[in-house]
Amino acid sequence: MGEFGLIGRLTAALGGDAAAGQVESARLGGGLLVGIGDDAAAWMQPNAVLVATTDMLVEGIHFNLDWTSWYDLGWKALAVNLSDVAAMGAAPGVALVSLGLRPDTPIADVEAFYAGMQELATVSGCTVAGGDTVSVCSDTVINVAVLGSMPAAEAGTLLRRGHGRPGYRLGVTGFLGASAGGLHALRTGVDVTVSGVGALLDAHRRPQPRLEAGAALRAAGVRCAMDVSDGLLADLGKLCATAGCGATVRADSLPVHPALRSLFPDMALGWAAGGGEDYELLFAAPHDVMERAVAALMLLGLPATDIGELVTDPDVRIVDGAGQSVTIQAPGWDHFGHA
Amino acid sequence: MGEFGLIGRLTAALGGDAAAGQVESARLGGGLLVGIGDDAAAWMQPNAVLVATTDMLVEGIHFNLDWTSWYDLGWKALAVNLSDVAAMGAAPGVALVSLGLRPDTPIADVEAFYAGMQELATVSGCTVAGGDTVSVCSDTVINVAVLGSMPAAEAGTLLRRGHGRPGYRLGVTGFLGASAGGLHALRTGVDVTVSGVGALLDAHRRPQPRLEAGAALRAAGVRCAMDVSDGLLADLGKLCATAGCGATVRADSLPVHPALRSLFPDMALGWAAGGGEDYELLFAAPHDVMERAVAALMLLGLPATDIGELVTDPDVRIVDGAGQSVTIQAPGWDHFGHA
Repeated sequence: MGEFGLIGRLTAALGGDAAAGQVESARLGGGLLVGIGDDAAAWMQPNAVLVATTDMLVEGIHFNLDWTSWYDLGWKALAVNLSDVAAMGAAPGVALVSLGLRPDTPIADVEAFYAGMQELATVSGCTVAGGDTVSVCSDTVINVAVLGSMPAAEAGTLLRRGHGRPGYRLGVTGFLGASAGGLHALRTGVDVTVSGVGALLDAHRRPQPRLEAGAALRAAGVRCAMDVSDGLLADLGKLCATAGCGATVRADSLPVHPALRSLFPDMALGWAAGGGEDYELLFAAPHDVMERAVAALMLLGLPATDIGELVTDPDVRIVDGAGQSVTIQAPGWDHFGHA
Repeated sequence: MGEFGLIGRLTAALGGDAAAGQVESARLGGGLLVGIGDDAAAWMQPNAVLVATTDMLVEGIHFNLDWTSWYDLGWKALAVNLSDVAAMGAAPGVALVSLGLRPDTPIADVEAFYAGMQELATVSGCTVAGGDTVSVCSDTVINVAVLGSMPAAEAGTLLRRGHGRPGYRLGVTGFLGASAGGLHALRTGVDVTVSGVGALLDAHRRPQPRLEAGAALRAAGVRCAMDVSDGLLADLGKLCATAGCGATVRADSLPVHPALRSLFPDMALGWAAGGGEDYELLFAAPHDVMERAVAALMLLGLPATDIGELVTDPDVRIVDGAGQSVTIQAPGWDHFGHA
């Protein structure tokens, strides 16, 4: 059972799918709008919609201290959560950080971790407000929870996975596959002075959460989005399962990162389709809204690409220029499937 | 460097001590009231004070699956966070749960974990709204973050560690040491049918967060409190360091759990003073407020005990009936100190 299957079971165990429209009462002044199964939970307060998300990073599974600095780790641990906030179209507010450290971890490493996190928090308007520090026996563990918000009057515009409909165009921000290429470069010791390698390493080490893009998508009328963390095709499968539809993606339209295409031509398409950790936004909207959204993102300096459409048939198909189904070696990233 | 020292370093690294009165701006509609260094972070919104807290539990450090059921683990992982919310005098609203599981963890165990958490969430008015599930290589890791609130008009009544003043009486809810006794019983295989053992096991496995008590303390005029998680003397030391004072505690006044006194007479006082994981509330207030507070707690069916007073001298002293300093073997519970 993959992680997505597990989430389904647990959603049932916790009393129904709030994401399907059921409004539960939370004592925090309003009803739960979004429960388990989207990028973040969301609920109404009198003056705001609050969103909350949490991510756990485990040494040996999600990061490797042999090639990841503590500074970058701090940045990335916050970034993956801000990406979830962006995928709801919200603005981040407060972060809570739990660190499970080996007792021999130098204090300088912990300070570097917080410095990296603080750099991203500062540019993102997020306050690191507290946390927990414990010791672990073996692998370092990091958990970050972020609380964000949007104006209460805009509650209906929350970006939701389930808001996709057959006939909607599918778009994705930025380029894909760069993080997987950067990880490969780190693992195999590629010469970092080679032109283009730096861009891949940056993509892997310091992903840029698409907070402005999420807000721009919402303003342009987009209502369906999620972030690409487990690989485009894996995440598109989740979006389709939640929205109750399928998708057709044109292989030749995937925005493969230029450095990837140049440095690793054989693997570039596979990584773009399934490499994971892109932290770009995948979104769907009617044709006219999609055009407005892509134009709005261009104004932010962020390219966005129409990669296909949502369809009634529940499968996710990749097609070539002639509309014929093709197969891409796409590893994806499913924690439990991998293990 | 113990955990408390580490927190101090990190508070400085993150740009100053918000707890000392500096109000930082968070984008979530208001200023940060409480940052790192209290039981929970707190900040203002237009209609509410929000509080947020997070705790990480690591297998082999904080729990042992040989003698802890997954159901109890789910209960306890939420309870330790609700205890922090109680220590601020707030009401819980939403919980986010991250689970780092070994790939071979049976799904039934995960469902039992959530069932145990849901039982406590239901009686506490808290909604489990989302989370993250990842795989780990070795030790199971659990992180829970809880968001709570109180009315904005009552922001000035937040229970704070730093609000203690010399001359204040010191009180503690319930009984102490039972959890440490329960842990000892589990470790050594004490016969669970012996009278009183069940109460100790319950205290260890399913601590009752003192949410009603926190609200009652606030209503009675108490402004200084924290929860007892690391052992009474260790936590009192933190309260005193934050408040800039010391304390004198009368050894013969400590509310040693009756079953502990009867079953483990030699260790009872030590565990009550430093066993940890009591999840009772330690509070300080002027004499008249303390009397009102103790009476209010009695109406809730929760005994509370005056155990001493805050003093100007920065030391924490334990004294006998004649006022002479005594030493109690109190192990305490400092994650980094222990390791």
